Amino acid sequence: MKKFSFVKLLVLLVAIISLPQVVSAQKPEYVLVIHGGAGYLSPENSSENELTIVKNGLQRSLNAGEAVLRAGGSALDAVEASIRMLEDHPAFNAGRGAVINADGNIELDASIMDGSNTMAGAIAGVHTIKNPITAARKVMEASPHVLLIGEGAEKFAGEQGIEIIDPSYFFTEGSWNEYLRIKETQEKDGRKGTVGAVALDKHGNLAAGTSTGGMVMKQYGRVGDVPIIGAGTYANNETCAVSATGHGEYFIRNVVSYDISALMLYKNMSLEDAAHSVVMEKLAKQKGNGGIIAVDKDGNITMQCNTSSMYRGYVKSTGETNVLIFSK
Amino acid sequence: MKKFSFVKLLVLLVAIISLPQVVSAQKPEYVLVIHGGAGYLSPENSSENELTIVKNGLQRSLNAGEAVLRAGGSALDAVEASIRMLEDHPAFNAGRGAVINADGNIELDASIMDGSNTMAGAIAGVHTIKNPITAARKVMEASPHVLLIGEGAEKFAGEQGIEIIDPSYFFTEGSWNEYLRIKETQEKDGRKGTVGAVALDKHGNLAAGTSTGGMVMKQYGRVGDVPIIGAGTYANNETCAVSATGHGEYFIRNVVSYDISALMLYKNMSLEDAAHSVVMEKLAKQKGNGGIIAVDKDGNITMQCNTSSMYRGYVKSTGETNVLIFSK
Repeated sequence: MKKFSFVKLLVLLVAIISLPQVVSAQKPEYVLVIHGGAGYLSPENSSENELTIVKNGLQRSLNAGEAVLRAGGSALDAVEASIRMLEDHPAFNAGRGAVINADGNIELDASIMDGSNTMAGAIAGVHTIKNPITAARKVMEASPHVLLIGEGAEKFAGEQGIEIIDPSYFFTEGSWNEYLRIKETQEKDGRKGTVGAVALDKHGNLAAGTSTGGMVMKQYGRVGDVPIIGAGTYANNETCAVSATGHGEYFIRNVVSYDISALMLYKNMSLEDAAHSVVMEKLAKQKGNGGIIAVDKDGNITMQCNTSSMYRGYVKSTGETNVLIFSK
Repeated sequence: MKKFSFVKLLVLLVAIISLPQVVSAQKPEYVLVIHGGAGYLSPENSSENELTIVKNGLQRSLNAGEAVLRAGGSALDAVEASIRMLEDHPAFNAGRGAVINADGNIELDASIMDGSNTMAGAIAGVHTIKNPITAARKVMEASPHVLLIGEGAEKFAGEQGIEIIDPSYFFTEGSWNEYLRIKETQEKDGRKGTVGAVALDKHGNLAAGTSTGGMVMKQYGRVGDVPIIGAGTYANNETCAVSATGHGEYFIRNVVSYDISALMLYKNMSLEDAAHSVVMEKLAKQKGNGGIIAVDKDGNITMQCNTSSMYRGYVKSTGETNVLIFSK
């Protein structure tokens, strides 16, 4: 009898000790992950002041998206809110802070996907839309199409009441100085990067979105992976939501975002393993530089890049949260 | 002794009888499959005269591509040659025969992918390039990019010596009459369709390409699946080469061409089963109308559509060839 009580006590103790782990391994009510682009920053080559500005920007984006999720809003609304915040911030290469192309112009791309019904919307090559992510969502919800480009996309956005602004809005001191510097130095590898967000909401729905100002000094109406569903953005409640950032051409040819979903669905890989296989093996082997953020239907998250840095952050309903810059 | 001789004779006879089957089941030296768009034709609603024109056009395209493959040329060259022939023919919705959009203009898209190295090129929203498939190939081979759009794409093509023509070239009597008729009747479902080709060459390399004039009366710079690598076009020597045709928005959201490859690679499905799963199950369930043509690394082909017709044809080094219109 005494022995039995001891066993019961032991079981109780083990249960109490392991409780925090069990709770944190449970599916969180909601999850939000964001990125602000991958690159080659290291603690040695970056200024503390710039990093603080970036971290504050990421935090504000997380706050905006989390407010939506906490109130029971949709993953789609959270993704849009988070990305709008990054688009409005001059430190990120999307919306306001977009880089200037070879002709001295701005060209913006964005896409969004709703994992609950796999509907999607995207725009490419626009230069008068203040928040491209909102225009992409409008394409998804108010048109029978997925992808609209150039003047047609701007006309559609205008008719739908999306905010149209003068292109001068995008010419910040930072982007103009960078343009002049790169034009002079003929530097090849300018600031790339993109912003993006993925979310799981309280209703179990996933969404993903991505927005960019493209490659600095890009030519000829080049479009990268950002507005390409399956490359830069993918979401499906069956598997995961993914947003990518990096050297877009490699991300298109490797159908990166969809490939992560396919490895989960067809090979029963975990989100972590699927993303590792695509970003750290397949892409890294080809020198396809960049990374992804993702969340799966159970609220597991991953943020992987094969570069030395990726601006990123996450927040979960459990209170777990972080904002990070360097990959190691 | 007599019995032994009889057995030997029997074995010899069986071998001779089964020889043709064994040969045709072997990997052909080369294979070419083409399509000219999926639709809703039936023997009752189509004119014999129009079908003859289409069949002759498909045959000329097959001949052009086969000449390349027979001479030991690359799958890439064969795909380009076959598609150029279809682009130059006014009966197909690509190049010369492109449909007219809501503004009374032409907008052309095309893409091509080389399965030997998974390099790819694409253009979207151009209206002065005579053979968009050739411009897409130039993007792949002479630029660091995958996708160029609009004026930038035209500027690049012009600089690369690609034939630029006056847009009036595309306004054929057929496309203009169709434009006027659909404008008047407000008919919703105009002629869709696309042209495409996939090939396996004597060196074991795969390639795929697709070209289109888009949807008739389309608005707002809408771009479908054709210039989207992974959606309208995909090729990889590890698996297969695919070209799609149909309601582009569904093909983008379902990443159709890459999904067929992924099912082969990750689930060990045959080309036939993978294409069936995507076109006849997944897409059909969503009412995503259209079809695909494909060839795998062993020279197996499939041509599947969930509509009542798909202009299509194939030719193999074995002499096996056919040109088909209706799905049943």
